[in-house]
Amino acid sequence: MQGCAYVDGRYVAPEDAKISIFDWGFLHSDATYDVAHVWQGRFFRLDDHLDRFEASLAALRLDPGVDRATMRAVMHECVRRAGLRDAYVEVLCTRGRPAPGSRDPRSCSNRFMAFAIPFVWIATPERQREGIDLVVGSRRRIPADSVDPRVKNYHWLDFVMGLYEAYDRGAETVVLLDGDGRVTEGPGFNVFAVYADGARPRVVSADAGVLEGVSRRTAIELARDAGCDVQLRALPLDEFRRADEIFLTSTGGGVIPVATLDGVPVGGRPRGVFGPVSQRLQQGYWALHDDPRHVEPVRY
Amino acid sequence: MQGCAYVDGRYVAPEDAKISIFDWGFLHSDATYDVAHVWQGRFFRLDDHLDRFEASLAALRLDPGVDRATMRAVMHECVRRAGLRDAYVEVLCTRGRPAPGSRDPRSCSNRFMAFAIPFVWIATPERQREGIDLVVGSRRRIPADSVDPRVKNYHWLDFVMGLYEAYDRGAETVVLLDGDGRVTEGPGFNVFAVYADGARPRVVSADAGVLEGVSRRTAIELARDAGCDVQLRALPLDEFRRADEIFLTSTGGGVIPVATLDGVPVGGRPRGVFGPVSQRLQQGYWALHDDPRHVEPVRY
Repeated sequence: MQGCAYVDGRYVAPEDAKISIFDWGFLHSDATYDVAHVWQGRFFRLDDHLDRFEASLAALRLDPGVDRATMRAVMHECVRRAGLRDAYVEVLCTRGRPAPGSRDPRSCSNRFMAFAIPFVWIATPERQREGIDLVVGSRRRIPADSVDPRVKNYHWLDFVMGLYEAYDRGAETVVLLDGDGRVTEGPGFNVFAVYADGARPRVVSADAGVLEGVSRRTAIELARDAGCDVQLRALPLDEFRRADEIFLTSTGGGVIPVATLDGVPVGGRPRGVFGPVSQRLQQGYWALHDDPRHVEPVRY
Repeated sequence: MQGCAYVDGRYVAPEDAKISIFDWGFLHSDATYDVAHVWQGRFFRLDDHLDRFEASLAALRLDPGVDRATMRAVMHECVRRAGLRDAYVEVLCTRGRPAPGSRDPRSCSNRFMAFAIPFVWIATPERQREGIDLVVGSRRRIPADSVDPRVKNYHWLDFVMGLYEAYDRGAETVVLLDGDGRVTEGPGFNVFAVYADGARPRVVSADAGVLEGVSRRTAIELARDAGCDVQLRALPLDEFRRADEIFLTSTGGGVIPVATLDGVPVGGRPRGVFGPVSQRLQQGYWALHDDPRHVEPVRY
């Protein structure tokens, strides 16, 4: 496997990147992380990812023991050592191990790690051209008053079991609802619905119970620039089902059109044909990767 | 650190027990586990733990690649190699790593691991003699329709943040409520309330949204044997606050009396003085460790 990781203060090959099974990052999923991507040799919106990572660390009372400049340098160095032009670059911090015999997280030394691996797509470019098949899962998304989804975390069993449900139903990924039947998010992505019945397109996405994704923010900015009426609010399932367009946003692929929802073609379109807003935002997303405001060349 | 782990088919020292940071068991907390304990050289209710572990594996569609006899043999061997008479013995299974570039959990080889370490108390014997200080946390327990608590899992951020809340309030551990304000469980334990206002003591504990703990089951059996009226049902917070006795159950300590709830002495008792039901069940719990129906000598 191509890539490079930073563990215990050293750069190592991915196969040597390991953590203790006694680290609470594993035993209690007591950790936070963030993922930026590198495209054609440049980080995209790296500061936005580092801002969020620092907020997540504070929320969980984790101290990575390194400053922001060091985190940034480690991310660059992982990509450089891996020799990647297109990469998925994760920083993470775990609680660490409590003192022997203790169950007190305050006795832990928190641990900072990072890795760069080849870019991982939510859906491959081939599947993106066809549009992906999404189902509404039967599990409830872990609620924000249990585990705050704005603090990026590894509590994914609701998503993983939702993926199996999607596979069982012939689809490839899943979106979960909250306890009131409103659309939240899926494994690694935010979800948007577009409605074409007004003077200008309405673009709707959840404002609560979801990660405040950097790609989500990019899509919101692009939609506003394109003159759409962007509404961040609760999105009930019945309204979601009536969408003229649905797309996902993720660091793992940007803006990704959805072809079918629970087997029904979105907007009644043939497979591989997407609505105008999805197309425009998808093109705009990749075009921003040439915008000097958002990119930072890797220090190869 | 004393102990022994079983990883990748080999017995290793605890400091060498590591997993890949790319294992979904870490990156998505996609794993299940169980913990049995050894007391004075004997496993307690080991088959009950293995029954639950096998049910958890099936629920998450995990295949550990080893049969029950092998799991049992590995647990014995970890304790034997560690040379422990009192031990905390965990078996676990992670999803493993997907194929490079894939996000499909079906492409993973699941991984079975185990370890034995010195017995870890929820509260030390000294603290147990005083009775522990419990608070009601402000976070909601992750609901069962998001992540089933009967499938023992590492999704603990609600608990960990609850622990910090307890520390901030001068207590040592926390119990969380569900979305309807009813008592669920705490980090590593079930919770019981006892009421002495009837002809016989009423012992109440949640019947949903909690792990079906082996120590919980032991306490239920002991309470029934003692003539208590055991009620497994929703336990609203206001009823909980009126309890004459409160105790916790955990593999990490058995039956553990609670001295204060949110700073208020339970049942109005002085610190270190416990109610008759808690005392009786605590003694009964440890007495069962000599009962041949429940114990299995370690193959040293």
